[in-house]
Amino acid sequence: MTLLEAAAALRRSETSSAELTAAALERIERLNPSTNAMQTVMAEAARERAKQADQELARHEGRGPLHGIPIAVKDLFLTQGVRTTGGSRLFENYVPDHDAAVVELLRAGGAVLIGKTGMHELAYGITSSNPHFGAIRNPWDRDRIPGGSSGGSGAAVAAGMVSMAMGSDTGGSIRIPATFCGVVGLKPTYGRVSRYGAMPLGFSLDHMGPLTRSVRDAGAVLNVIAGYDSRDETSSRRPVENYVPDLEPSLHGLRIGLPENFYFERLDPDVDAAVRAAFQAAESRGAEIVPLRVPDIAAINTVARLILMAEASALLEPHLEHRDRFGADVVALLDQGRLLPATDYINAQRLRRAMQGEFAELWSRVDCLFTPTAPITAPRIGETTVTVGAENEDVRLAATRLVRAINALGLPAVSIPFGADRRGLPIGLQIVGQPFAEALILRVAQALVPEEVPVPPL
Amino acid sequence: MTLLEAAAALRRSETSSAELTAAALERIERLNPSTNAMQTVMAEAARERAKQADQELARHEGRGPLHGIPIAVKDLFLTQGVRTTGGSRLFENYVPDHDAAVVELLRAGGAVLIGKTGMHELAYGITSSNPHFGAIRNPWDRDRIPGGSSGGSGAAVAAGMVSMAMGSDTGGSIRIPATFCGVVGLKPTYGRVSRYGAMPLGFSLDHMGPLTRSVRDAGAVLNVIAGYDSRDETSSRRPVENYVPDLEPSLHGLRIGLPENFYFERLDPDVDAAVRAAFQAAESRGAEIVPLRVPDIAAINTVARLILMAEASALLEPHLEHRDRFGADVVALLDQGRLLPATDYINAQRLRRAMQGEFAELWSRVDCLFTPTAPITAPRIGETTVTVGAENEDVRLAATRLVRAINALGLPAVSIPFGADRRGLPIGLQIVGQPFAEALILRVAQALVPEEVPVPPL
Repeated sequence: MTLLEAAAALRRSETSSAELTAAALERIERLNPSTNAMQTVMAEAARERAKQADQELARHEGRGPLHGIPIAVKDLFLTQGVRTTGGSRLFENYVPDHDAAVVELLRAGGAVLIGKTGMHELAYGITSSNPHFGAIRNPWDRDRIPGGSSGGSGAAVAAGMVSMAMGSDTGGSIRIPATFCGVVGLKPTYGRVSRYGAMPLGFSLDHMGPLTRSVRDAGAVLNVIAGYDSRDETSSRRPVENYVPDLEPSLHGLRIGLPENFYFERLDPDVDAAVRAAFQAAESRGAEIVPLRVPDIAAINTVARLILMAEASALLEPHLEHRDRFGADVVALLDQGRLLPATDYINAQRLRRAMQGEFAELWSRVDCLFTPTAPITAPRIGETTVTVGAENEDVRLAATRLVRAINALGLPAVSIPFGADRRGLPIGLQIVGQPFAEALILRVAQALVPEEVPVPPL
Repeated sequence: MTLLEAAAALRRSETSSAELTAAALERIERLNPSTNAMQTVMAEAARERAKQADQELARHEGRGPLHGIPIAVKDLFLTQGVRTTGGSRLFENYVPDHDAAVVELLRAGGAVLIGKTGMHELAYGITSSNPHFGAIRNPWDRDRIPGGSSGGSGAAVAAGMVSMAMGSDTGGSIRIPATFCGVVGLKPTYGRVSRYGAMPLGFSLDHMGPLTRSVRDAGAVLNVIAGYDSRDETSSRRPVENYVPDLEPSLHGLRIGLPENFYFERLDPDVDAAVRAAFQAAESRGAEIVPLRVPDIAAINTVARLILMAEASALLEPHLEHRDRFGADVVALLDQGRLLPATDYINAQRLRRAMQGEFAELWSRVDCLFTPTAPITAPRIGETTVTVGAENEDVRLAATRLVRAINALGLPAVSIPFGADRRGLPIGLQIVGQPFAEALILRVAQALVPEEVPVPPL
């Protein structure tokens, strides 16, 4: 069931929050041992909260569609009284005394927080094979990674433990697990959702957003978490909108950009075919397809990686005296980041601003872009290189190649499942819009994927 | 004559723009050999423009108080068809094909651009002893520096060559020459005045503003140059105000902060006495003096210096292959800046934001702060250390000690002459306000210094 379906069933008294919560806990108990999606399960607190939600609903004190719905958040969102590890041994015993802004808002919306999802160590990687807390496994094939860093959120939603789990995205960390796990993953515009109380990784690149089982669910969650927060100085004062699209929106009059460079180079052929089919599907629903050339995405990727490495090292440097508390991949990245000169970081930020300006010119010609989310489907756990077409490529570089630049540009993007490869693994379509065009990209996504995403054989 | 007095005389036809321009050119011819304030004199173009201004004024096509007034701009503002050196051999033959935003606005306001003022090489220093174009000399004592980097602007205004010269301020470069030369120097809030077409030094610290012979003149110039400019991405959309204060404003109800820490430590005793007298003067005009402790200014200074060094090196690094084209002090700073790690720069920017937050809390208790602009009066040309009280201090550190942090904080500040030392050298009072409080600090400045600043014996 999607979040909005569960909400409707609650309103019709066909179920209760207690039942939904018990079912979610049962499913977690059954599927967590084989997926490791949940870092922490808050069974008692969730049952309590569900009981309370049922009473509120019975008294018609409804707080909106999230009221009474079991949800999870990535284990980098601070939760008052509940351990928040960030996937790191540095914080394995850290129990915050306050909630992250997103958690506050979800709770205020009546959601039942049932657990914290596992993640790539410190959100600094894309496998979610966590050296301290174990690898997270993809519900579609448990020998494969769910992607990362929000891998637990992707796996938990794909496995139907919860209908929504919050993630964070610094270089693709919501969209990569969304594509590998076959769910919807929304990275809003930079500034749209408060980062207060979310453990930072790359200050100028971090974004918070939901992973869900339907496009409309992503919009319903964004309705609750979007908005200005004075505690996050990058937060935007721009008014929020209704982000839930109609059930069957028309694409008439919309112009969808088809990148002629970069995005359709070096793809798994199944990915290529699936994404090209998405253009046809959009066209059949009334959209106009506009072939165009995009600015130098490879350059923006380089800039985004350099900025991330410098910002992550600046943040975590004080902890590097405890080298044994880091996984090998993360400590290597942190060491590299320390060697970057300030002048390179500053020039990268200057180039980034210039690129944002170049990209802004696209939006006079098209309303959104379609690209593959990743050039590949989920790699096997432990693989460090993947074969893409005829070439070998580093797993991290391959997985982030089509998503990372969007973080540096600060644009909203949603990944939706669109087809599967020859092995049955999900393929993701990335829809990118101009700043604050979340409602538009969700409308387009809904037109292409109006139903709940498929359930893996479990 | 001040700018506004000249404007009034023009309106009453007691003089003409041609006469004002001829007088300015005559004064430049007489005084520039001994001060070196002007890098480039635009005699022909100025005479032409003055003639045109007189025709416009005769036809009552007035463009406001700057119409027909001879002015100068620091030689880092790009001027179409007129060499713009930035005080550097790198640009000794550079003739821009367009005007800086500030120059556009001044021209649109009818000002007669009569010349480009000399400066510290690349605006990267406070002496204005330029190794390529000669030392600029202080009109109050030609063996002394005018301060910098806008030293030519300070000297030109002090010597009465022009009633206004534009400067730029990255770590005190408007306020330091204002105090050493005994004129008014206004550094507006970060984002208030466009930097488009001004050669940058430290992207996140650079500010543009006027040096004038009266407080009201500074307001009149700000009226012309303030406002949003899409070509400068740090430009603020906040509406502009009328910045010209009344002739004799009351300070009734105003709360003036008297810093109990940092600002009154290690001062020349004459400076200390002069600035303490300013508090008495303000109190006698109705203000309330509020003693308070300010946040850690020494830490903000360190942060501001590190940020400047990294940003300047990022910008100028490509030119460092031509080491012989730099002066010794500048090349040393650029070499040091290249060695700074990105992590230090990022953490400095984080600390800066935290400090901005701490500082913001002051403004619930006071409306502005009074501090000395510099702990000393103008040092001798060639001096690298100065005696402050009983101690020796590096000239650059001493001159910037009380002004540099204000750049990192982005606050508006004006330096006004207030008294003189035992040698007759001017002393400056710095008035600092909250963001976009230019009108308020100019009102306070006007109450203390309602007249034209004194003329040095020339």
